[in-house]
Amino acid sequence: MENKLLVLGSLLLPVLIFVGAILPKGGAEEAHSSPETSQWVLLVHGGAGTLDSVNTPPEKQAMYKASMMKVLDRGAEILSMEGHALDAVEAVIRMLEDDSLFNAGRGAVLNSSGFAELDASIMDGDTKKAGAVAGVTTLKNPITVARAVMEQSKHVMMAGKGAETFAESLGLEVVDPSYFLTQKSMDRYQKMKEHGTVGVVALDMHGNLAAGTSTGGMMMKRYGRIGDSPIIGAGTYADNSSCAVSCTGEGEYFIRLAIAHDVSTRMKYSGASLQAAADTVIMGELTRLGGGGGLIAIDKDGNHAFSFNTPGMIRGMVSSKEESQVKFFKQ
Amino acid sequence: MENKLLVLGSLLLPVLIFVGAILPKGGAEEAHSSPETSQWVLLVHGGAGTLDSVNTPPEKQAMYKASMMKVLDRGAEILSMEGHALDAVEAVIRMLEDDSLFNAGRGAVLNSSGFAELDASIMDGDTKKAGAVAGVTTLKNPITVARAVMEQSKHVMMAGKGAETFAESLGLEVVDPSYFLTQKSMDRYQKMKEHGTVGVVALDMHGNLAAGTSTGGMMMKRYGRIGDSPIIGAGTYADNSSCAVSCTGEGEYFIRLAIAHDVSTRMKYSGASLQAAADTVIMGELTRLGGGGGLIAIDKDGNHAFSFNTPGMIRGMVSSKEESQVKFFKQ
Repeated sequence: MENKLLVLGSLLLPVLIFVGAILPKGGAEEAHSSPETSQWVLLVHGGAGTLDSVNTPPEKQAMYKASMMKVLDRGAEILSMEGHALDAVEAVIRMLEDDSLFNAGRGAVLNSSGFAELDASIMDGDTKKAGAVAGVTTLKNPITVARAVMEQSKHVMMAGKGAETFAESLGLEVVDPSYFLTQKSMDRYQKMKEHGTVGVVALDMHGNLAAGTSTGGMMMKRYGRIGDSPIIGAGTYADNSSCAVSCTGEGEYFIRLAIAHDVSTRMKYSGASLQAAADTVIMGELTRLGGGGGLIAIDKDGNHAFSFNTPGMIRGMVSSKEESQVKFFKQ
Repeated sequence: MENKLLVLGSLLLPVLIFVGAILPKGGAEEAHSSPETSQWVLLVHGGAGTLDSVNTPPEKQAMYKASMMKVLDRGAEILSMEGHALDAVEAVIRMLEDDSLFNAGRGAVLNSSGFAELDASIMDGDTKKAGAVAGVTTLKNPITVARAVMEQSKHVMMAGKGAETFAESLGLEVVDPSYFLTQKSMDRYQKMKEHGTVGVVALDMHGNLAAGTSTGGMMMKRYGRIGDSPIIGAGTYADNSSCAVSCTGEGEYFIRLAIAHDVSTRMKYSGASLQAAADTVIMGELTRLGGGGGLIAIDKDGNHAFSFNTPGMIRGMVSSKEESQVKFFKQ
């Protein structure tokens, strides 16, 4: 595949140079800011767990809001400089993984055996390439290893010790499992993280969609349990011809309904709008089955959607048209 | 959920007894053979790997055919006695797992580290409940553990050591990893198993669909790699409102396209027939992306479909209307 693209690339190069030579020249800046569209959008979620307006005091909200605004700024910086959706998704999720407020990376909740098992996945809507890791206990940034699985292995998904060995062989950052244990017992935000997960979807100026999700999974889950976050089609999906989706909630239901892929196919096969597809899946299918959670999504035209059947979902948005905003509850 | 059903069940029981009392009595046998429909269908695949008509001598074909006929008989026995699709799927896959001819259970190929890592999943189209295990090395019948995850845990997917510990706690059969090594080096059928996988889909007399898939994965895969077989939506999907699907082939492509779920959604959202949906996904999407493999599927009306873009796929069918048949190549 790559070889074919290289051959194609070398055939196209002279043509592109020739076209370049006869086109009227703009300023360097103008040339750089005129790809297919100058529109970009980035959405983030930080979990839909036990968040509700009664039990979530303003000081907690302020802490989460500050963290969310910081990562939105980083995403905006990348996308406004014509960066790629995939790079924005990875960079923003890395920051959330390093922030102990969220149930991903450093802040991951513990399983019933008392240690953190992390899951993550990422998907490129352009090539439909994807990568995922599941049940890893020593990887500082699971989203970066998921991307490495996508780009540096012939596989899509790797789990446990095998995934850790793979990451080590590439020199990716490995930590002692105790890195994820810091102050867990006295952390008064643990409860809030239940079913929490972080996720990002992005549309870049080149028209590419990408999605990524990272989590410590369900609190007190059974050792070995894998949720929807590392499952392409369940917790994460991206397809340039429809949309990019990242989910959070009770993973088992998201797997059974293949929720992220379902949103995409409702758009592609029944012509549903992004918001209608998201709401039918979350407020309809998921709710009917008895599951709780939500999702964030962006379609190829830059429309965005949030949908959740829980009292709240930590979520933020920034785009080429709108300033950063962070919300917690239903409006 | 179960509690609600129990309550509902106990409310309904007197009504059912009353209805039973006023209905005209038929013979015991007639009463037993008059559910919603007397139609049933069962399809099996045994891999789509390197099978081709030039390199697959008649004696090899005869061995595979004998094994396939035996498991079709078992499936027919269960379904013709009004057994459930889920039971037929599990029973047939167990036999294939115990048969060293196939790349699942005992016959599993080895990974690049020299041991077998097994994946399996099962889904009930009635309840949309599902179970899966991934990367297990000591479970004699991964399909049975997948079903236990579905029915005896609150999770859908469990991997590695955690899945093995779970199976042991239920008293399910555990074997030494050497069970999967027997005579591997001298097995002249190893090559044929590459990308091979076994899968079963069934429609029972009660109108229920079920699907299951089990595999040793890709030969010489990297330690820790998870393919599509244990991924609900990728290698396996069942939904009574559309169809049941089991896949075999290069798993990475099946995950990226969420192939089993895609067949289901093409039927549900764009009204495609089962065969059209299967062919669009396999001959269209999968082929375009560069992947090889195939699938078996049954829809809620009892239509069945085989689709594969490889030279062959070991497959068999039996139904209430047709005798068992086994095929290898395109017709």
